[in-house]
Amino acid sequence: MPRQQFQIETGGQGLYEFTDAAADALSDMGAEDGLLTVFTRHTSCSLLIQENADPDVVRDLREFFHRIVPPSDDASMGWVRHRSEGPDDMPAHIKAALTAVSLSIPVDKGRMMLGTWQGLYLFEHRDRPHRRQIVLQFLPG
Amino acid sequence: MPRQQFQIETGGQGLYEFTDAAADALSDMGAEDGLLTVFTRHTSCSLLIQENADPDVVRDLREFFHRIVPPSDDASMGWVRHRSEGPDDMPAHIKAALTAVSLSIPVDKGRMMLGTWQGLYLFEHRDRPHRRQIVLQFLPG
Amino acid sequence: MPRQQFQIETGGQGLYEFTDAAADALSDMGAEDGLLTVFTRHTSCSLLIQENADPDVVRDLREFFHRIVPPSDDASMGWVRHRSEGPDDMPAHIKAALTAVSLSIPVDKGRMMLGTWQGLYLFEHRDRPHRRQIVLQFLPG
Repeated sequence: MPRQQFQIETGGQGLYEFTDAAADALSDMGAEDGLLTVFTRHTSCSLLIQENADPDVVRDLREFFHRIVPPSDDASMGWVRHRSEGPDDMPAHIKAALTAVSLSIPVDKGRMMLGTWQGLYLFEHRDRPHRRQIVLQFLPG
Repeated sequence: MPRQQFQIETGGQGLYEFTDAAADALSDMGAEDGLLTVFTRHTSCSLLIQENADPDVVRDLREFFHRIVPPSDDASMGWVRHRSEGPDDMPAHIKAALTAVSLSIPVDKGRMMLGTWQGLYLFEHRDRPHRRQIVLQFLPG
Repeated sequence: MPRQQFQIETGGQGLYEFTDAAADALSDMGAEDGLLTVFTRHTSCSLLIQENADPDVVRDLREFFHRIVPPSDDASMGWVRHRSEGPDDMPAHIKAALTAVSLSIPVDKGRMMLGTWQGLYLFEHRDRPHRRQIVLQFLPG
């Protein structure tokens, strides 16, 4: 079946590239021409296609999201009600809502049609390490 | 044809879960393995996959978006030009741009491969009640 | 093969509608019922479905994103590290992360199932003109 699942072990907040793992999975599926869908089965991490050349880009992305959605023990976040799972939890849901849980990528002759600088990232929004499930589904077309 | 449409009646701003309605539609379509695309035909509401356990999560999501994009009669929004449809209208377009009009969800044996806490939501950004059209398209794969 | 590529020449920051070009490409592909995926192969522009009736809507969208992510030579952006490509570059990556690199649109009898007010836009986040590559992939279903 043209589907693969794998897990990404995260070490707390940050962006974790998995472009190579996705390319390997496509190859394992025998994909030719079609559409790859990448989906993450969580509500406190998300998916992103972003520049993978200068590591400062993902560092700055993380910093921006931290500034726009600070931890809920920050003075500016007194309005947050969902606090039972820690000060990083509700901000994680918000950051996930601002980004994406799925990516759709055209595939040509078994290769994702990514631009030169595009890489696939899991964006972990929780402080503690997590094991995140990724589903890759290929549809021929 | 592996497509269904339904409407969601909203009662003003907020998140409206339709996970069960989507699952029923999948079943009606006789879906097995493949990809479900959910699409909304509007520019002032959007779609979200988010936690459906604690109702405070969707309440906080709504509050965050209200704070980052206040109504256009708020003092901080004096720069807004598109005002003819009311102070909730341009913020609705902005909130829609910050979230998503479509969701892509792998389907296994007729079931969406959602994580334990993931639910599908329509995010209504207008104050007045609206009838929102949802298109579900299933592609076998 | 049910895929088309074209380029959009942008003249700096702003939203560029390409609904008609996408409709023409669908027609050239002989598309009937199925799913259209639109993908852009860049990390400093993005894709958006938004209202194409009042031009103030896209002007206000651009203004909102400029205010929430100012150029990195703005006093509020002193934390940005990725500066080698100019003050518009890191904000461009952030704005791309806040919007989308792909759109998924159900197609009925060769026509995108867009709502009355929905148009497809390339959102250019760089100051200088760019030639942006768009991939359209149609899957019958």
